[in-house]
Amino acid sequence: MIVQMRTGASTGNLEQVIGAITAAGHGYRVIEGTERSVIGVLGSAPSQDLFEHVQTLPGVEMVIRISKPYKLTSREFHPESTVVTVGDVQIGAGMPVLIAGPCVVEGRDALLQTARAAKAAGAVMLRGGAYKPRTSPYSFQGLGVEGLELLAYAREETGLPIVTEVMEPEQVELVAEYADVLQIGARNMSNFPLLRRAGRSDKAVLLKRGFSATIEEWLMSAEYVLAEGNERVILCERGIRSFDPMTRFTLDLTAVPLVKELTHLPVIVDPSHGTGRRDLVAPMSLAAIAAGADGLIVEIHHDPAQALCDGPQAILPDVLRQIADAIGPVYAAVRSPVLAQRT
Amino acid sequence: MIVQMRTGASTGNLEQVIGAITAAGHGYRVIEGTERSVIGVLGSAPSQDLFEHVQTLPGVEMVIRISKPYKLTSREFHPESTVVTVGDVQIGAGMPVLIAGPCVVEGRDALLQTARAAKAAGAVMLRGGAYKPRTSPYSFQGLGVEGLELLAYAREETGLPIVTEVMEPEQVELVAEYADVLQIGARNMSNFPLLRRAGRSDKAVLLKRGFSATIEEWLMSAEYVLAEGNERVILCERGIRSFDPMTRFTLDLTAVPLVKELTHLPVIVDPSHGTGRRDLVAPMSLAAIAAGADGLIVEIHHDPAQALCDGPQAILPDVLRQIADAIGPVYAAVRSPVLAQRT
Amino acid sequence: MIVQMRTGASTGNLEQVIGAITAAGHGYRVIEGTERSVIGVLGSAPSQDLFEHVQTLPGVEMVIRISKPYKLTSREFHPESTVVTVGDVQIGAGMPVLIAGPCVVEGRDALLQTARAAKAAGAVMLRGGAYKPRTSPYSFQGLGVEGLELLAYAREETGLPIVTEVMEPEQVELVAEYADVLQIGARNMSNFPLLRRAGRSDKAVLLKRGFSATIEEWLMSAEYVLAEGNERVILCERGIRSFDPMTRFTLDLTAVPLVKELTHLPVIVDPSHGTGRRDLVAPMSLAAIAAGADGLIVEIHHDPAQALCDGPQAILPDVLRQIADAIGPVYAAVRSPVLAQRT
Amino acid sequence: MIVQMRTGASTGNLEQVIGAITAAGHGYRVIEGTERSVIGVLGSAPSQDLFEHVQTLPGVEMVIRISKPYKLTSREFHPESTVVTVGDVQIGAGMPVLIAGPCVVEGRDALLQTARAAKAAGAVMLRGGAYKPRTSPYSFQGLGVEGLELLAYAREETGLPIVTEVMEPEQVELVAEYADVLQIGARNMSNFPLLRRAGRSDKAVLLKRGFSATIEEWLMSAEYVLAEGNERVILCERGIRSFDPMTRFTLDLTAVPLVKELTHLPVIVDPSHGTGRRDLVAPMSLAAIAAGADGLIVEIHHDPAQALCDGPQAILPDVLRQIADAIGPVYAAVRSPVLAQRT
Repeated sequence: MIVQMRTGASTGNLEQVIGAITAAGHGYRVIEGTERSVIGVLGSAPSQDLFEHVQTLPGVEMVIRISKPYKLTSREFHPESTVVTVGDVQIGAGMPVLIAGPCVVEGRDALLQTARAAKAAGAVMLRGGAYKPRTSPYSFQGLGVEGLELLAYAREETGLPIVTEVMEPEQVELVAEYADVLQIGARNMSNFPLLRRAGRSDKAVLLKRGFSATIEEWLMSAEYVLAEGNERVILCERGIRSFDPMTRFTLDLTAVPLVKELTHLPVIVDPSHGTGRRDLVAPMSLAAIAAGADGLIVEIHHDPAQALCDGPQAILPDVLRQIADAIGPVYAAVRSPVLAQRT
Repeated sequence: MIVQMRTGASTGNLEQVIGAITAAGHGYRVIEGTERSVIGVLGSAPSQDLFEHVQTLPGVEMVIRISKPYKLTSREFHPESTVVTVGDVQIGAGMPVLIAGPCVVEGRDALLQTARAAKAAGAVMLRGGAYKPRTSPYSFQGLGVEGLELLAYAREETGLPIVTEVMEPEQVELVAEYADVLQIGARNMSNFPLLRRAGRSDKAVLLKRGFSATIEEWLMSAEYVLAEGNERVILCERGIRSFDPMTRFTLDLTAVPLVKELTHLPVIVDPSHGTGRRDLVAPMSLAAIAAGADGLIVEIHHDPAQALCDGPQAILPDVLRQIADAIGPVYAAVRSPVLAQRT
Repeated sequence: MIVQMRTGASTGNLEQVIGAITAAGHGYRVIEGTERSVIGVLGSAPSQDLFEHVQTLPGVEMVIRISKPYKLTSREFHPESTVVTVGDVQIGAGMPVLIAGPCVVEGRDALLQTARAAKAAGAVMLRGGAYKPRTSPYSFQGLGVEGLELLAYAREETGLPIVTEVMEPEQVELVAEYADVLQIGARNMSNFPLLRRAGRSDKAVLLKRGFSATIEEWLMSAEYVLAEGNERVILCERGIRSFDPMTRFTLDLTAVPLVKELTHLPVIVDPSHGTGRRDLVAPMSLAAIAAGADGLIVEIHHDPAQALCDGPQAILPDVLRQIADAIGPVYAAVRSPVLAQRT
Repeated sequence: MIVQMRTGASTGNLEQVIGAITAAGHGYRVIEGTERSVIGVLGSAPSQDLFEHVQTLPGVEMVIRISKPYKLTSREFHPESTVVTVGDVQIGAGMPVLIAGPCVVEGRDALLQTARAAKAAGAVMLRGGAYKPRTSPYSFQGLGVEGLELLAYAREETGLPIVTEVMEPEQVELVAEYADVLQIGARNMSNFPLLRRAGRSDKAVLLKRGFSATIEEWLMSAEYVLAEGNERVILCERGIRSFDPMTRFTLDLTAVPLVKELTHLPVIVDPSHGTGRRDLVAPMSLAAIAAGADGLIVEIHHDPAQALCDGPQAILPDVLRQIADAIGPVYAAVRSPVLAQRT
């Protein structure tokens, strides 16, 4: 931690800052510049509380954090990449995985048809919402427990493990009875009670990035889950909010190599929500793989025009198969020395 | 709702769209342009589901919503301004109100001292967190029930009604036992289960804008509360995420006159979180009043350097009094014809 | 300047950084942390080139600039506020000034009518475009020299000094023959050849903030003008790009008190471009004054529905007069101790 | 064009709008809704001026543009993809091209060394700045004419065509004497006099996206060049401004398939400026190719630590070769049916 004093800060100001640093058990070193003094804080990572406290002291211009505020999530503390295993599926082990399914579970037949098409196209896990966060209170909000039961049935029929969203802390145990992976959606990335509860579950957690979350905030949310003892976290980039009205979100693929540098957790990409447009799903899927993603989570529908939610971004199973076929060659092309360099 | 077809869409495409529109009980009118056709949907507000469904049909380029997706929240359906009454305090009745208090309840003496200072300075309601959403799992998260009890005690001693945050659906009833106003924080603006539960409470709700929420999304969240029967909603602008690292957020004061045009609900401003810097609180407080805000919610601390959270943005009671003294004259200066024009 | 080394950087890495620092004539001090080393650079402001160079050295994680990159613009080097005088008008001297006029000069009669209305309403300077940057090559681009001549004629008739935009370096001398203040528009804030040329003019410069410029970048652009010897720079906040489609831009009023803290230059606000909507001009004008702005620049039109450009944001002279009438009382209400605190 | 009236607009309001539409030579059709009327404007694309004018009329709530504001740039008017030929190099013809070179021309030997390394690694064109837009007036601004001469010399020695930036209208002819492709930088995307002048040159134009430009604004800037008769425009995505401080910009790869759908012009990607970090250049280069880019423009340096500008983002020639080697396989993997679907 570095404390930069204002030009004209008094000796008393400096002493008060030093007092706070030493009271927190840290050493320090002062650098006297020509215009202002800077104080370096010694010792292992100062607490967030000290960081904020020093900012309030008189004569302080700025406090700069040098240590990262997350630990369990950080690659510095855990250099080997984490592989999250779900049934037979390994996420983060090299070859990218494909997760697919409908936005929302609509009924037994539709789900089974989509699940079989997903599997046939190359998906290794099934996604589908039983509880859906909707902007409007008047929109369809999902089938709830019935949806969970249908998902479990689809798993039985196809062998595909299930990823499904959980929206509130009290639902975690119920959803965990059915799901293989608990999805925490973008709108809940900073729902800390939910993160804690998921952290106490024995199911893997797929943690989507909030659409205006910085990468550091996203990793801090992962830290909430890991801090409760659950290390099976899969990060998922799904688009950030930006200024161009032409797409619903701006898919931030640069987050993929960045996050893989900062953390040991696997990271996948959701090109469906990340673009909001069906015609962009295939190119952005393959771009995600080329950027180094450990997998994709894609919305498909056997008849998008009849989908009960997010139809404009669902692709047909045929397109999914074309994406699946291209993943291997793209991955092979990029994993050579260039890829080696970044991991 | 307006459906714009692609150039080159077939007659079959057109007929499928018309089929969907009429199946949903709407009339329609086709405008044949030189390059493409446009279909106007007649009748009262088409559902969100129809809106999304038509987007998925072949040959459709874009669907434009004309009706607003919120109803109970809209000034079109409820032209008179709503006044939210909490004890003796009226929010939205004209003269702006001042809510103040610490970021977080720290202890009995500190709270009482701050509450008395807030009241002496001109505040009519007390804010203070018992449950605090914190980015880091390792930061102080609030005193919980003990904090609620201290708030109730401070109310007894000062007569000031209490605003405090509720973070999860299951807490709503507990917090409502103590609080006069339930605050839903920016990170929970799209926590729909929480909004629903607050909508079933008999306490007023202070709904902060999510820091990347559009104004429409914010009003849709208010709609969740109103749809459950609770019409006592106070909107609160608290800064949006933007690109300049110099402040934590960008306070969007234009939202104030915009929201007052679109909705009948009162809107207040939080200049403390909206800027993150103590030196900006006073000017932005007065700017908020000049923009037409119905009130302010401000963080104060009798000794900011000892605050357990958000110390850098807390102001001293003395500064609060100076703000309070200026609110009246600023409001008087702007409520004349110019103000008349906008409401 | 602070150089933070990576965990695991070698002694050789450290020595190379120290070599670069001393080669540039600076002293240094090393802080050995438990995880990594940090090097403080001593002496007056290191150059931008050293700052960038050190970032490229092996073993360096991050370089943090402590000194501000602008000097002539900074209040640290020039503590007293600058007052820019244009004819009888003083900008930055206390009482805010009102600049008004049409978006674009349309013709002699219309201009004169608008100019007289502006003056009658309380404006002390006339704005109007002879050269207009338009997004579409097919839109009206201004009258050019004829527009400049009409502006000069309007000045003669009304006594109001003229503010008008200059779009390319080669136009500076021509425009300066007619104008009292050279406006550099938001799209040209980083047009460095234009800034230099304006810096060699003897006319005052009104420098609008680029709509995605950070405050630091804006001040660096002002530095270009000052570095050429022209100290008569007026900064103008006019809205930044953000994610909400409801307004064209997001007026960043917090920039006003921030900029006044960082620089000695006066800062005014353009609520017309900053919101893009006529109904928001009055409240945001008064909010700007309450935030501490030294003035306003507002688009008016005697018949907005006939305006050749930006009609949706032009207000009627009557509304301008109401704004003008409220400026004094708002300024009086905010300049007391609270205002004192911030300047 | 669709005009949506306010609820409660009068018949007179409606008639005034209709009058404006017919005066501009358009037919119209009125759709009477239950709450408000909507007017469809018939005939080919209404002008921007009519679009803006109608917005100002009383009783109008919103005007929605249906036609695209650009024409020559649009794929609707020019369905076949444009191939821009520069010497032997074809951009937009299928196989992506690689352009590489230093940020800025630093001297004869360094340039030649870098140019040869670029060519050896697989680059087919040389980039390098003779005129550099720099945020600080105190930074190195390029060698000017001397830099142009060195670039011409490097072309002679290597056979690589030259891409170099032009910063002001008056430089266009001079730069065009030396360059094969005129680069217009992000900060000048809305420098309309510069775009016009480049539009009258016989050299190809590489038009970077402004870092807060919408895709529509970017295409409108291309329209300026095409409207002057120059159809050899190459679009270049180079990162947009966003909220995460971890990278200088957010590379918007979704823009690639979007732009290829909207326009017939080729589009390339600059991963160096788009990320600002050397370690992200390789993954984002390959992601760009997978997204469908027609090429890459990359900064390299034989000794990044000695680069006079932007060293932190320059890669070594070795890394460039690894990227070059992977482009072919990635392109082959994605150009199959999936790619077919999107173009």
